[in-house]
Amino acid sequence: MSGAPLNERSALELAHLLQRRELNAEHLLRSCLERIHLREPEVQAWTHLAEEKALRHARELDRGAVRGLMHGLPIGVKDLFDTMDMPTCYGSPIYAGHRPAADAASVAMCIGAGAIAVGKTVTTEFATFKPGKTRNPHRLTHTPGGSSSGSAAAVADAMVPLAFGTQTAASIIRPAAFCGIVGYKPSFGNVARAGVKSLSETLDTVGCFGRTVQDVGLFAAAMTGDDRLLQIERASAPHFAVCRTHEWHYAGQDTQRAMQDAAAGLSSGGARVSDFPLPEIFSRLVQAQSEIMAFEAARSLAHERLNHLPAISPALAGILKAGIEIPMEQHQNNLKLANSARIAIDGCFDRFDAIIAPSTIGEAPEGLEHTGDPVFCRMWTLLGLPCVHVPFTTGSTGLPVGLQVIGRYGADEQTLQAAHWLQQTMRR
Amino acid sequence: MSGAPLNERSALELAHLLQRRELNAEHLLRSCLERIHLREPEVQAWTHLAEEKALRHARELDRGAVRGLMHGLPIGVKDLFDTMDMPTCYGSPIYAGHRPAADAASVAMCIGAGAIAVGKTVTTEFATFKPGKTRNPHRLTHTPGGSSSGSAAAVADAMVPLAFGTQTAASIIRPAAFCGIVGYKPSFGNVARAGVKSLSETLDTVGCFGRTVQDVGLFAAAMTGDDRLLQIERASAPHFAVCRTHEWHYAGQDTQRAMQDAAAGLSSGGARVSDFPLPEIFSRLVQAQSEIMAFEAARSLAHERLNHLPAISPALAGILKAGIEIPMEQHQNNLKLANSARIAIDGCFDRFDAIIAPSTIGEAPEGLEHTGDPVFCRMWTLLGLPCVHVPFTTGSTGLPVGLQVIGRYGADEQTLQAAHWLQQTMRR
Repeated sequence: MSGAPLNERSALELAHLLQRRELNAEHLLRSCLERIHLREPEVQAWTHLAEEKALRHARELDRGAVRGLMHGLPIGVKDLFDTMDMPTCYGSPIYAGHRPAADAASVAMCIGAGAIAVGKTVTTEFATFKPGKTRNPHRLTHTPGGSSSGSAAAVADAMVPLAFGTQTAASIIRPAAFCGIVGYKPSFGNVARAGVKSLSETLDTVGCFGRTVQDVGLFAAAMTGDDRLLQIERASAPHFAVCRTHEWHYAGQDTQRAMQDAAAGLSSGGARVSDFPLPEIFSRLVQAQSEIMAFEAARSLAHERLNHLPAISPALAGILKAGIEIPMEQHQNNLKLANSARIAIDGCFDRFDAIIAPSTIGEAPEGLEHTGDPVFCRMWTLLGLPCVHVPFTTGSTGLPVGLQVIGRYGADEQTLQAAHWLQQTMRR
Repeated sequence: MSGAPLNERSALELAHLLQRRELNAEHLLRSCLERIHLREPEVQAWTHLAEEKALRHARELDRGAVRGLMHGLPIGVKDLFDTMDMPTCYGSPIYAGHRPAADAASVAMCIGAGAIAVGKTVTTEFATFKPGKTRNPHRLTHTPGGSSSGSAAAVADAMVPLAFGTQTAASIIRPAAFCGIVGYKPSFGNVARAGVKSLSETLDTVGCFGRTVQDVGLFAAAMTGDDRLLQIERASAPHFAVCRTHEWHYAGQDTQRAMQDAAAGLSSGGARVSDFPLPEIFSRLVQAQSEIMAFEAARSLAHERLNHLPAISPALAGILKAGIEIPMEQHQNNLKLANSARIAIDGCFDRFDAIIAPSTIGEAPEGLEHTGDPVFCRMWTLLGLPCVHVPFTTGSTGLPVGLQVIGRYGADEQTLQAAHWLQQTMRR
């Protein structure tokens, strides 16, 4: 057991203590709430805090049998997920005070496994680009990234060990990178989306944040029922493929250096490291992802677009207008391109275990008006591959920097294993 | 213009009259409401009728500009779709009196195009197997099929020209077959599912019912924005592939005869007709579809399973229990199998334009305790291909019988064209 304060410990360590009844849930929760009280005025990660409800739930868990994998673990729920006992606003004034009738499926799975929902965390408007109030806990004048801004900030600031995120473009990997924590976007389709506000059915992916790779594995095991994700241990060194992507010219110096350092560090740690230049067809995927997202968002948000246009931000309204004008034929061609690219990259994973690639252009940019550039995540989201952001260094101004580990479709266990290997190796 | 009563006419004819202002929306709606008043006590297609709201909407449309493709057309909305101004119960007592905050995306698209929602139609429990109250309008002691029971019965009984459906196993094609109307399941992914209660993300597909193929094309054009679906005309004769499927031994005599008659009729009508035996791998898809549906339903309905188990029917509870016990690895293997089969069948469409295959075992069975066997639809739903049920004959007891036309993934226009050709040819 580490000697760190409870709120700073890993979810895995806390889960073991809770399961063995060496720690009670209320005690842990109070430690998290204390941190929230201390820091929330500055960080502003939450749209709703359910302290009393959470405390009641913790006491109930302490009195009863062990419920499951997440017994007694406090979590943050991105306010894009429906919750039956907390308001759910999707980051939009259209839904101010909205109370859904049910919990989102993934939330219900975690609560069924014993997790305690502490509150709802800030999301950008419908998980798109207009920021909420959250600040980067490492430097309050900088963005935490989006759209899962509050979840990433809350985990980074040790308010909770775990929190829900979703990614349609870059909404898990980017805030994880800016806040210096682990963000995990599972293989497309692995986690049920029922009760999560839909933006783009081809892209929307439920995932999570933690401070270690093993922690997000634990969270995902509870969300999906896939026990293999509990087996994330340091195994034999993976073969990493370094992929600069066709968007490499966007990479700032901090990201460039992180890629060099990782290649060198992994190699000297005993891993095989190769270069992986992407075939030409992949250069069209960033554009395709943007068009697919706009086309589908214009349809998924048809109710809001047709009934509440004045309450939609001008930027999102512009995307929806562009999306509704994209012809179905062009959309189908984008989907075909994505499908060909998915088949092509699947074969590449015969040659290596995992890809490392940039997560962001660099450190979290200054200002709270934007959540940063999603350019390094759009393609991987469209490909539907499992992605794990691993923080391991700091940039030129001292803010967190890391990289994403990307695995074969469906090989989430191996991808987390490789990410764990990277996190362990680069931490030394 | 036909001389038939307004409520019996095709949506396409009505749309033309409404657009040219030769018919007013209120007049048409009153004709539909009259039919509903006459027949609803026996047919029981509706869970909620919104007469006053619909009449207000009709008068508003008559006063204002032409809104879009569906201007003034009365529609039925399956009670699996969220509606902001009508109760939405998903066929389950858990949601009795539930009022969602927004319309489902596809409903919003149609209302945006000028459609008038007359009310909510009966669905089975969460679109699975436990029937609602609806009876087959052709013979009240027989099932209308499920899960889109009320929508199919309402359109078949000339209560409305068009209604929404969804299909996860057989929920559009089967009730269309039993009620003797056209049912259209678009290519997977073509219609946004936001606001439709999720059962299985790999399978759930939004579609619709009408009395002609052109009518469902009009409806789908409004739902998706794909104008190509408005161009369904009698063109050159398609090349049909007759596919008995690996489930042929389930086909009753009426279905067997329909297949023979169609092959003969299409051929003498000028179409090329070939036999299309499916490769062996397709024999495993019915089982795979059942397992995928159970696996995903257990997750999508996690909130209901974990919080409201006593209010779930024993049959559905059994499916959810089985589903939660399927290991993720088995689920991934099922998805891989489906993907291989999708690639295999796509290539087959180089050799013909459309497949004809059974929709059901035979006529609507007697009794209201079951909605009939979904066996002939499971595979096509898993493949994600566009399917259109076309009614063209009657069975040994006089109830409707037809077949489904199945097209290449994404080729919805060509599929509807082939179905239209079949409907026109076999009607003669």
